[in-house]
Amino acid sequence: MSFALYKRGIKKPFTEVIKANIGDAQAMGQRPITFLRQVVALCTYPNLLDSPSFPEDAKNRARRILQGCGGNSLGSYSASQGINCIREDVASYIERRDGGVPADPDNIYLTTGASDGIATILKILVSGGGKSRTGVMIPIPQYPLYSAVISELDAIQVNYYLDEENCWALDVNELRRSLNEAKAYCNPKVLCIINPGNPTGQVQNRKCIEDVIHFAWEEKLFLLADEVYQDNVYSEGCQFHSFKKILYEMGPEYYNNVELASFHSTSKGYMGECGYRGGYMEVINLHPEIKGQLVKLLSVRLCPPVSGQAAMDIVVNPPIPGEESYSQFIKEKESVLNNLAKKAKLTEDMFNKVPGIHCNTLQGAMYAFPRIFIPSKAIEEAKAHKMAPDMFYCMKLLEETGICVVPGSGFGQREGSYHFRMTILPPVEKLKILLEKVKDFHINTTYSAH
Amino acid sequence: MSFALYKRGIKKPFTEVIKANIGDAQAMGQRPITFLRQVVALCTYPNLLDSPSFPEDAKNRARRILQGCGGNSLGSYSASQGINCIREDVASYIERRDGGVPADPDNIYLTTGASDGIATILKILVSGGGKSRTGVMIPIPQYPLYSAVISELDAIQVNYYLDEENCWALDVNELRRSLNEAKAYCNPKVLCIINPGNPTGQVQNRKCIEDVIHFAWEEKLFLLADEVYQDNVYSEGCQFHSFKKILYEMGPEYYNNVELASFHSTSKGYMGECGYRGGYMEVINLHPEIKGQLVKLLSVRLCPPVSGQAAMDIVVNPPIPGEESYSQFIKEKESVLNNLAKKAKLTEDMFNKVPGIHCNTLQGAMYAFPRIFIPSKAIEEAKAHKMAPDMFYCMKLLEETGICVVPGSGFGQREGSYHFRMTILPPVEKLKILLEKVKDFHINTTYSAH
Repeated sequence: MSFALYKRGIKKPFTEVIKANIGDAQAMGQRPITFLRQVVALCTYPNLLDSPSFPEDAKNRARRILQGCGGNSLGSYSASQGINCIREDVASYIERRDGGVPADPDNIYLTTGASDGIATILKILVSGGGKSRTGVMIPIPQYPLYSAVISELDAIQVNYYLDEENCWALDVNELRRSLNEAKAYCNPKVLCIINPGNPTGQVQNRKCIEDVIHFAWEEKLFLLADEVYQDNVYSEGCQFHSFKKILYEMGPEYYNNVELASFHSTSKGYMGECGYRGGYMEVINLHPEIKGQLVKLLSVRLCPPVSGQAAMDIVVNPPIPGEESYSQFIKEKESVLNNLAKKAKLTEDMFNKVPGIHCNTLQGAMYAFPRIFIPSKAIEEAKAHKMAPDMFYCMKLLEETGICVVPGSGFGQREGSYHFRMTILPPVEKLKILLEKVKDFHINTTYSAH
Repeated sequence: MSFALYKRGIKKPFTEVIKANIGDAQAMGQRPITFLRQVVALCTYPNLLDSPSFPEDAKNRARRILQGCGGNSLGSYSASQGINCIREDVASYIERRDGGVPADPDNIYLTTGASDGIATILKILVSGGGKSRTGVMIPIPQYPLYSAVISELDAIQVNYYLDEENCWALDVNELRRSLNEAKAYCNPKVLCIINPGNPTGQVQNRKCIEDVIHFAWEEKLFLLADEVYQDNVYSEGCQFHSFKKILYEMGPEYYNNVELASFHSTSKGYMGECGYRGGYMEVINLHPEIKGQLVKLLSVRLCPPVSGQAAMDIVVNPPIPGEESYSQFIKEKESVLNNLAKKAKLTEDMFNKVPGIHCNTLQGAMYAFPRIFIPSKAIEEAKAHKMAPDMFYCMKLLEETGICVVPGSGFGQREGSYHFRMTILPPVEKLKILLEKVKDFHINTTYSAH
């Protein structure tokens, strides 16, 4: 095999590269939510506030955001923590989402996408050297932002494994095993949870979240809840529960003690505004000294992009029934989410018809992470190329079909098991073709390798 | 003294707080450049491409940017290095600016404001522990981003002092003194230059830049040139010279060897788009291994905000003569720059009329950094309050006049000298009032302290 894709002038056996490697909805053709773009355009060029072609509710949102900006302009720095009225809207959103559990705008920090928030929180929590180096517990498979930031900060990555046989469930016994082993060589202080899961797509049930919170409370771990896929839940019987809500409902002993940071973003959900780099984090029970460090660290970077803050405002504060833009908004929202649910089911069903591929139910998020069984001959061939077998598989898939997916080794997986991550974002018709191609490729490759 | 400003309900002796502490032009009432906002609004809400109220040249720019975006949308992630066509526009801008010195788009990285670029480059250059810890040379006074990032990275801050008696000039003998002393306790690898100076407002002449480059070449230092005020030069006889251009003109021995990163931003100049967090860096002669690390580090944060990239494109690629928007653009640009020049002169003149204040010529940037002579009685009073004397002075100024400036101790200054930094961004009439108030305050304070 020669990976001819990277050689110029050689004819490829496909007409188009399909990038199913990154959760980038609009790059895959998803249209922006009209209302969000109208509001951001009005904020950008306020002359449009006089234009009859923009609805009044969009204009009102834009005026409110601009009033929160220095000089009424998106071009001014905001406070490092973000624009006040947007943090208030975020707090109201959280209260609605969590059935009335109070949220304080003072605990909300707007961020440059969720990645920035996660990296910032980890930065202030990590300290020490030698055996007292900070351990950060992360799921395996994980979204590789975590391993990268942990490595940048010279902290210790502490793996806990999700249970593939049980639809990637999180088992507290596995958390305990992982923690106890880690205590021998570092100081585990942070427990990261991704719910709904990336790359694994599971949605945690209430009982599981309670168990995790109890464990964090018992072990005095800082909980970091990556909840950027909170609007992406597809399976019947599954429901998103925020860590904040469950923590509150477990009573004051938990709610007043467990330190929790939770993250959201403009990039996922049904808005899919990745390019705006908008996000927020809500941080509860942070030690005042650490909070001071956080504020200082944020102020060095001045502020998150203000147009991303405006976009975040619309994510948490979309049109409501009775407003002029509501009917178009709800049509657009439901179209995106219904499509994603359909594509999640389609992907799971197609993969599970292929001998040698097994795919858990895609309960949420926007990825499939199927297990692929690679015959030993192909494994040897990969080793001869000094490549991980799943990396070799994905390179060959790209080479032969033009489909770009990410090998499981990029996310971590149990030794001897192989996977890839694929987004379900391409339009339905294109996704069907893609899945057919993967099927043919898998069958041919694994056969020919025997 | 009681710092009553922070107590609720107490009547203050002023009607308005004037924030002259941060270089935030639009917060001070500067209006955005129309063309930039039109292009960004068109990119945000492409329905406007059909609107007759937007000029064709703005539409063409918007179409070009959107063609560079995944799915033709600002909502997609860009490449981590930034959108290709915008990096090409940046390279063309640099070539024009530098009289034809070639610039390679591959060496351009779009960033989240200049701060992000500076922090990123320092991060990949800093390494080692103990006596081999990386030393980073910075001017004193400095923009405090540098000291903050150096401290975050656990590197060593190596101070070189600008010569206040000589209009804040940079003297290579002082660089040499600083470097030689630092070699005893760390491994100095990076030399940071801010030109035009922040907070000091000096503009380096050609000879000085040549000397600095020769020094960096001799000592194998990585040059970090913070050139975000390149469009803000006011004094007659002063001119901005980029380090890149001078490096090139010094010949291949220098141009092929000295490692240089230079930074620019949407936030300053005459556009003043701070909130967009747009910026770029051009990096020359970077070691391929370090370049690999840089690309990896950038990819973890996905990409800079795409609307900030679009804004950066207009900063480097504004309307040209013959285009529909040119006459309005040039009127707006000249109005901002002429006003800034006027305010620079006004500020310098007013300060130098006050006994006990001395202000160097504001050659560039957007700040005054006057030296203030504080009588010994006031110094003792400050010490009794456990405050630096200039901090005490600035707090009292705020308390009594509502004017917010930053004490020199936040930037660093020679022991026993005191300063503050004040922006020249308020509108002329407001600036005059502000300067009168500072004058009265200074005279009263220093008199009453005797």
